[in-house]
Amino acid sequence: MNQANQPQFATPLNRRKGTIEMNHGAGGRAMVQLIQEVFQAHLSSPELLAGDDGATLSMPAGRVVMASDAHVVSPLIFPGGDIGSLAVHGTINDVAMMGAMPLYLSAAFILEEGFPLSDLETIVASMGRAAHEAGVPVVAGDTKVVERGKGDGVFVTTTGIGVLQDGIGPSGDGAQAGDTVLVSGTIGDHGIAILSKRENLDFETEIRSDSAALHTMVADLIAAGVDLHVLRDPTRGGVATTLNEIAQQSGVGIRINEADIPVKSEVAAACELLGIDPLTIANEGKMLVFCPAADADKALNVMRNHSLGQDAAIIGTIVEDPNGFVQMETSFGGSRMVDWLVGEQLPRIC
Amino acid sequence: MNQANQPQFATPLNRRKGTIEMNHGAGGRAMVQLIQEVFQAHLSSPELLAGDDGATLSMPAGRVVMASDAHVVSPLIFPGGDIGSLAVHGTINDVAMMGAMPLYLSAAFILEEGFPLSDLETIVASMGRAAHEAGVPVVAGDTKVVERGKGDGVFVTTTGIGVLQDGIGPSGDGAQAGDTVLVSGTIGDHGIAILSKRENLDFETEIRSDSAALHTMVADLIAAGVDLHVLRDPTRGGVATTLNEIAQQSGVGIRINEADIPVKSEVAAACELLGIDPLTIANEGKMLVFCPAADADKALNVMRNHSLGQDAAIIGTIVEDPNGFVQMETSFGGSRMVDWLVGEQLPRIC
Repeated sequence: MNQANQPQFATPLNRRKGTIEMNHGAGGRAMVQLIQEVFQAHLSSPELLAGDDGATLSMPAGRVVMASDAHVVSPLIFPGGDIGSLAVHGTINDVAMMGAMPLYLSAAFILEEGFPLSDLETIVASMGRAAHEAGVPVVAGDTKVVERGKGDGVFVTTTGIGVLQDGIGPSGDGAQAGDTVLVSGTIGDHGIAILSKRENLDFETEIRSDSAALHTMVADLIAAGVDLHVLRDPTRGGVATTLNEIAQQSGVGIRINEADIPVKSEVAAACELLGIDPLTIANEGKMLVFCPAADADKALNVMRNHSLGQDAAIIGTIVEDPNGFVQMETSFGGSRMVDWLVGEQLPRIC
Repeated sequence: MNQANQPQFATPLNRRKGTIEMNHGAGGRAMVQLIQEVFQAHLSSPELLAGDDGATLSMPAGRVVMASDAHVVSPLIFPGGDIGSLAVHGTINDVAMMGAMPLYLSAAFILEEGFPLSDLETIVASMGRAAHEAGVPVVAGDTKVVERGKGDGVFVTTTGIGVLQDGIGPSGDGAQAGDTVLVSGTIGDHGIAILSKRENLDFETEIRSDSAALHTMVADLIAAGVDLHVLRDPTRGGVATTLNEIAQQSGVGIRINEADIPVKSEVAAACELLGIDPLTIANEGKMLVFCPAADADKALNVMRNHSLGQDAAIIGTIVEDPNGFVQMETSFGGSRMVDWLVGEQLPRIC
């Protein structure tokens, strides 16, 4: 929409005390005002400002990657992030894990009647900052409102598209016997940050979510010529579930070493206190990299030289195993099976 | 995921009596089973079956259009459709209204704990059929679960991408004085269908939603060489709100003739009974076309020759008017202003 041609509103939204009302989702003037004063104000890409049903985008030639995530995290705002930044990072990472460079995002909001406009603005502003910092603009969106008691504040679904260079194509079925497994940093931070906020746990040191966009680290690995067999971010279900998925998809076994897996001491302490295995906890700014052993040191160096990869580590190897078992050498010298997450453990973690 | 490498489950989901549980969203084995047995079973694109974080797609060269819609319609199943088919049609139409040919969809589900698996399967199967009939596959997706009372059965967010031919670019700011306005068929069907189901109204003839994908009609208009200044589907807020949006975006006035606007007699009767203006009611399978007067007859013929456009009509013209007013010649010979929808009228219509 040309800004000059936007409808004018006599009274701006009451950002301090106002709340979401059903008419903010009805398609009329109230919705236009909410979109202008909150969404367009903070997500000011030219495509979004055009006010059309969709966005027209320029894309370089090549294969396209598309990924979509619904976000229902509770609480909406947590140490190290909120649903707005998480929705940007989560979807950028899903596109990046395909080896692609994310270029554009869409964001669809489902708002609950009565939700404070001030909280909505905090979340949308955070989404705008995260998108800006990542260099991946929000170009299209939608807003719906449901009655009080039919939602939970805000749900956000983000979809990302990106382009994939020729010759690049990491995939869950790409792991090969002999490959090395790396992780880009400490595990368990996001899940423990959410849990501590949700349960009002007070640890000596505040544990913050690792929520972050990993696409530039992937780009660095590609630029360095690392042969990326598999990339995946261990979100819901944690490293344990992600490794099992990949073992299944690739038809291989995985062996990891507990002592090599980086875990912050305060996260380890919280896990012990709560009786949770850090391997099953969601991460939102970490990735697992599977590459040929010959490329492992190069990959490790590239990751450690990236601001988000200082704690990167080599944690295991791929073996032939038609059963697709994941096994871990424990710190005590024994060995145990690492299984899929069973049950829910931490609902609404992302 | 290679089907051969998928995890095997001893007991299939209980589709008849089972319900959604929190662990269906937790990222573990229960989620994998739900995805395999419900989502992949009905939305069986190769990209979705790959089981990766996103889909790798081939796109022809050209500009790309992206559009996203959250769907919160209530009831979930209604005469003429359900949230699954609606989510496919709605997003295909948003891409098509940019003049683009939709190629791929993603779908993200937010499920409420306790929702019957049989209803979910009905909805996902309907989504699969709608996508198949439209020739636009669902290639990526996500599933989250929220606690009972924190959602409302199912919310679905769909995102579509498509390609835009060179030289094509209808846009809300493209209307010019002298243009003709056409509508592709009868208005108000979707809103009245939803309302009658919601309120248990019993009309003599069942009124069915017009939910349908319009991209092939757009392609026909482009192939016929119609100069498309504006295309838009009058969903939330109806024809009245959509015309006001376009008048604002383009900085023009719009004059329409009430007698020329196609409304089914049963819809007109329901509107009179309920005291609702059919111009403000949502449609889900209709579009407004703005083109030069010289192209109007050609556009009308193309639309009427399409199975979804048999009731297409010329309904108005564009005039110079910096105020952007929309006015209607009434059937009684008078003239009245057509305003934006104010208030909510019909919440959760799409």
